[in-house]
Amino acid sequence: MSSLQQFLLLITLLPFFSSTSLAVDFCVADLNGYQTPSGYVCKNPANVTADDFVFSGLVTGANTTNINKAAATPATVQQFPGLNGLNLAAARADFAPGGAIPLHTHPYSSEMIYVVEGSVTAGFVSGITSNKVYVKKLKKGEIMVFPQGLVHFQVNTGSENAVVFATFGNADPGVQMINAALFGNDFSSFLVEKTTNIDQAEVRKLKKLLGGSG
Amino acid sequence: MSSLQQFLLLITLLPFFSSTSLAVDFCVADLNGYQTPSGYVCKNPANVTADDFVFSGLVTGANTTNINKAAATPATVQQFPGLNGLNLAAARADFAPGGAIPLHTHPYSSEMIYVVEGSVTAGFVSGITSNKVYVKKLKKGEIMVFPQGLVHFQVNTGSENAVVFATFGNADPGVQMINAALFGNDFSSFLVEKTTNIDQAEVRKLKKLLGGSG
Amino acid sequence: MSSLQQFLLLITLLPFFSSTSLAVDFCVADLNGYQTPSGYVCKNPANVTADDFVFSGLVTGANTTNINKAAATPATVQQFPGLNGLNLAAARADFAPGGAIPLHTHPYSSEMIYVVEGSVTAGFVSGITSNKVYVKKLKKGEIMVFPQGLVHFQVNTGSENAVVFATFGNADPGVQMINAALFGNDFSSFLVEKTTNIDQAEVRKLKKLLGGSG
Amino acid sequence: MSSLQQFLLLITLLPFFSSTSLAVDFCVADLNGYQTPSGYVCKNPANVTADDFVFSGLVTGANTTNINKAAATPATVQQFPGLNGLNLAAARADFAPGGAIPLHTHPYSSEMIYVVEGSVTAGFVSGITSNKVYVKKLKKGEIMVFPQGLVHFQVNTGSENAVVFATFGNADPGVQMINAALFGNDFSSFLVEKTTNIDQAEVRKLKKLLGGSG
Amino acid sequence: MSSLQQFLLLITLLPFFSSTSLAVDFCVADLNGYQTPSGYVCKNPANVTADDFVFSGLVTGANTTNINKAAATPATVQQFPGLNGLNLAAARADFAPGGAIPLHTHPYSSEMIYVVEGSVTAGFVSGITSNKVYVKKLKKGEIMVFPQGLVHFQVNTGSENAVVFATFGNADPGVQMINAALFGNDFSSFLVEKTTNIDQAEVRKLKKLLGGSG
Amino acid sequence: MSSLQQFLLLITLLPFFSSTSLAVDFCVADLNGYQTPSGYVCKNPANVTADDFVFSGLVTGANTTNINKAAATPATVQQFPGLNGLNLAAARADFAPGGAIPLHTHPYSSEMIYVVEGSVTAGFVSGITSNKVYVKKLKKGEIMVFPQGLVHFQVNTGSENAVVFATFGNADPGVQMINAALFGNDFSSFLVEKTTNIDQAEVRKLKKLLGGSG
Repeated sequence: MSSLQQFLLLITLLPFFSSTSLAVDFCVADLNGYQTPSGYVCKNPANVTADDFVFSGLVTGANTTNINKAAATPATVQQFPGLNGLNLAAARADFAPGGAIPLHTHPYSSEMIYVVEGSVTAGFVSGITSNKVYVKKLKKGEIMVFPQGLVHFQVNTGSENAVVFATFGNADPGVQMINAALFGNDFSSFLVEKTTNIDQAEVRKLKKLLGGSG
Repeated sequence: MSSLQQFLLLITLLPFFSSTSLAVDFCVADLNGYQTPSGYVCKNPANVTADDFVFSGLVTGANTTNINKAAATPATVQQFPGLNGLNLAAARADFAPGGAIPLHTHPYSSEMIYVVEGSVTAGFVSGITSNKVYVKKLKKGEIMVFPQGLVHFQVNTGSENAVVFATFGNADPGVQMINAALFGNDFSSFLVEKTTNIDQAEVRKLKKLLGGSG
Repeated sequence: MSSLQQFLLLITLLPFFSSTSLAVDFCVADLNGYQTPSGYVCKNPANVTADDFVFSGLVTGANTTNINKAAATPATVQQFPGLNGLNLAAARADFAPGGAIPLHTHPYSSEMIYVVEGSVTAGFVSGITSNKVYVKKLKKGEIMVFPQGLVHFQVNTGSENAVVFATFGNADPGVQMINAALFGNDFSSFLVEKTTNIDQAEVRKLKKLLGGSG
Repeated sequence: MSSLQQFLLLITLLPFFSSTSLAVDFCVADLNGYQTPSGYVCKNPANVTADDFVFSGLVTGANTTNINKAAATPATVQQFPGLNGLNLAAARADFAPGGAIPLHTHPYSSEMIYVVEGSVTAGFVSGITSNKVYVKKLKKGEIMVFPQGLVHFQVNTGSENAVVFATFGNADPGVQMINAALFGNDFSSFLVEKTTNIDQAEVRKLKKLLGGSG
Repeated sequence: MSSLQQFLLLITLLPFFSSTSLAVDFCVADLNGYQTPSGYVCKNPANVTADDFVFSGLVTGANTTNINKAAATPATVQQFPGLNGLNLAAARADFAPGGAIPLHTHPYSSEMIYVVEGSVTAGFVSGITSNKVYVKKLKKGEIMVFPQGLVHFQVNTGSENAVVFATFGNADPGVQMINAALFGNDFSSFLVEKTTNIDQAEVRKLKKLLGGSG
Repeated sequence: MSSLQQFLLLITLLPFFSSTSLAVDFCVADLNGYQTPSGYVCKNPANVTADDFVFSGLVTGANTTNINKAAATPATVQQFPGLNGLNLAAARADFAPGGAIPLHTHPYSSEMIYVVEGSVTAGFVSGITSNKVYVKKLKKGEIMVFPQGLVHFQVNTGSENAVVFATFGNADPGVQMINAALFGNDFSSFLVEKTTNIDQAEVRKLKKLLGGSG
């Protein structure tokens, strides 16, 4: 094949490849840029490298020396900008024996957990099926899925440390911890009792425990 | 214009209108039929009438003589099959003075409320902004929006009855009452305490109140 | 619980809550900012308050002393920036007796109406089912849904004023009034006749009435 | 490579390919089956052949001897079941000189037209930009796009026949002809006048022309 | 009708039409502006004219004097900014006899082709149905659809030139040419062989042909 | 609280909880039932248990004694019906030293991999950025993301076995192996050469290796 032919080949394919500013294959977030309902504005593709698609922040887990004996490390678009627009995110949870990730929801995504080490008892509650609790003890290598927006939890009921790798179908799944939403802020104790039936003395006790007021 | 021309006009337009089995403009749910991730299978359009698009079940409110002094009447696809596929649903909430719709979430939709009568204090908690509580007293005619999947509530802090009309951007928004999810089922008291910090004595007391066990 | 434990709890939960620039729970529109196909860029969440989620512009209706004896007041993302990204919007329609909201469509959303006061005769036409008209007289408290993109209308056929609260499954549903699209602009009378069969004399008469030309 | 290795290769890849009932790559419609908000149920993939993905119904155009001197031939999921779930559909429009496709909307998709033969004057009206009319004469090979849900039209203002190939971003875009919706059915003349300002005498005349009543 | 009434009519309709900065009906791309996962930021609607919705770049085809004897001319949002947010794009392919558009995929859209001139043999491979090849010779006026993300091709097996008009259900469908992805870059020959079984000598030969290295 | 009050509470909450046929919180696939573009029809929620949300098939890996020295085990909706409608799926890949998962794409989802054991060299090619290869050696605990629809691969370039856990943002991501699509079927050797530039002798050799013909 002649150089001319090669040149012509390039010309043939050129229209689809000519722009270095196209972002269709990916849209790595510019975390200092604007946010929109669909995610962050894109970093210039010309400056994107393989490193933008790799995240090392889950190699080691967070310290579990805390009230929950457990800790979560997120890898959503805010920590891993390469996820922007790709409908995926992750997190790592570490548990000492007896550790628990408190009851919480993700408003914008279902969650799948994969047990990397140890075992955990995990579950969720479905509002629709008469508040039925779906709970199961998982061993290493098993996966479980929690449907979008439902309260769910994981507890290390084993005697060893446990590690869980969690993934989401959204780069920004959101998170709402039930205890923090009720007791870790200035939500009026009167309104908390009124809307949960938990009595005010208990509400105040938990607010003290979790750093809330009101 | 001759009959022939009229006939030809019909022929011209016919290809788009010839089928009585098309469901594109709407897909009224056959509630006895299959469900899919996108909703129910469609009722035969030939049997659909204006009545399928009208719902009268919110004309009167439910009885508020109960522990919450409030009651909700839903108009989702299960009650109003014409909503299937249209990304809209509604509900009516009635409040006696002091009545409250307990803290809850909708996993699949944001909610907008419109105060029809009286006034209500309404609010939600955002997990992302450090569990900040966004609360406001609304008077008749005002609207407020609660973002998807976040815990929210409404309390009648006025001295008269109140009525709220709520709408959703999904024919099946789902609902999860926090008190019922924690205390109105057989969720183990041990796990509830473990994942919420609410102490077991209180958990058991609330389970008794809300019909739960375990 | 010791202060140390409280401190450790905060550390545990911190990774998910540390950023004040996250917009995942909501994305209040910066109306002076860029627009994208998914909506406006987000206002800084740190500056968002409960007021951003409340709208009072529908408390009173617009003046109905006009040719239609009716008037609509919108509450879409342009008037109520808190709706950005939440797939909900609203409007209020006021009718004197005999008043009518002219035939129109919303290109990007179905609509649900709730009769707040009086009664209205409402309806829509489906292109697919041989242009069948679905029309119904609604009384106070009834709801009706108009599928996305189809022409629909509301007429006060009662003897009292009427008020309707309308909602949409999109923060920006769009609107196209059929009479304004045909007669309220410079759409050439020749083309209007050609594409609607309405004769040019009538077209010109209506253009005069509705402020159009051409 | 040994037969054993070949066998092992097959085993390696097998899990992804073992089922003949998977429909993920495509979901050819079973037009006699159920419809759902996301489309028709899928034909068994084992019975799908290349013919399911090819449609010959647009090779020749429809007869233009009618009141509009134009005719449209659709290729939506109802005529071309292979489109089910693929977010694409097509149509062909044929025009004698002076022919017009009447003003209409597609509730569920934008439209792109490509002029195959002759030339057409095409346009749409935007409700948002003060009912501005965007109109342009297109020559052979040009393309124009009409945003979703807005009234649009095409007229053959040339002296030759014209052919247009139209495509949509939805397998079932829907269609609503404005003249048929107003005058080609039993929509009450009183309500048509009331909601369009077109006077009743004209409404009745057009109803006679287009086969309507009432 | 009096001028006063006309004035009042305008006032009635005004709230929906008053802003010149609304972009809901369309969002013409500002190609020099930010990109987001949902597309480009919108050009000011006040500066949008009919020309923004028309594209003439497909009137003539590209030169087919190249190694493939074929050439593609795209009309995606990058060339035709009016497509932004409308879920449609197009391309034109020109073939000399024996010409071929190489095997490729579009990651973000299915494709529909319409044969404008000549005939082409077109096909795709489905990964799910045991790598079955769906191939068909198409004549002028026929359409064929290639499901999203699957490798597909078109070859002019006739004796005349051929022209194909292609459309997509996404303003930015993306494109990945298999030969260019394997041989037209610095993808290591070792890894190419390892992951495709094509032997390294052939890989190196093709890299020379297609301008690659490594 | 009296029994009467408890009874009234149940009545209050009943409308939302009364149906055992609701599927909104989840829609576990009935794999013997119909498929639609949005997934399978739902299993009756009354028969759903915690086991439907747990999958044990990834606890052990597949045998790597094959031509690729690697094997993938999928956990998509076909193996794990609880995923239906939840926008998540998973897979496990096992590698002997030197093992490789061949170049492939997923038409309907991006992919995220998490290195569970050993290390892998992983990469993808972007069609848009001039066929740039993004490749990186990952160690245990690192994650990498491959954007939707782009060719990607993983090779165990270490000296130990490696295990990778992969997740997807779709219950049915699809898969297309490039070597199987080109050489593992009856795709005509003439057309393969024509559309990839790989010469026919090599094509025939690879067809023999991978079980293809033609």
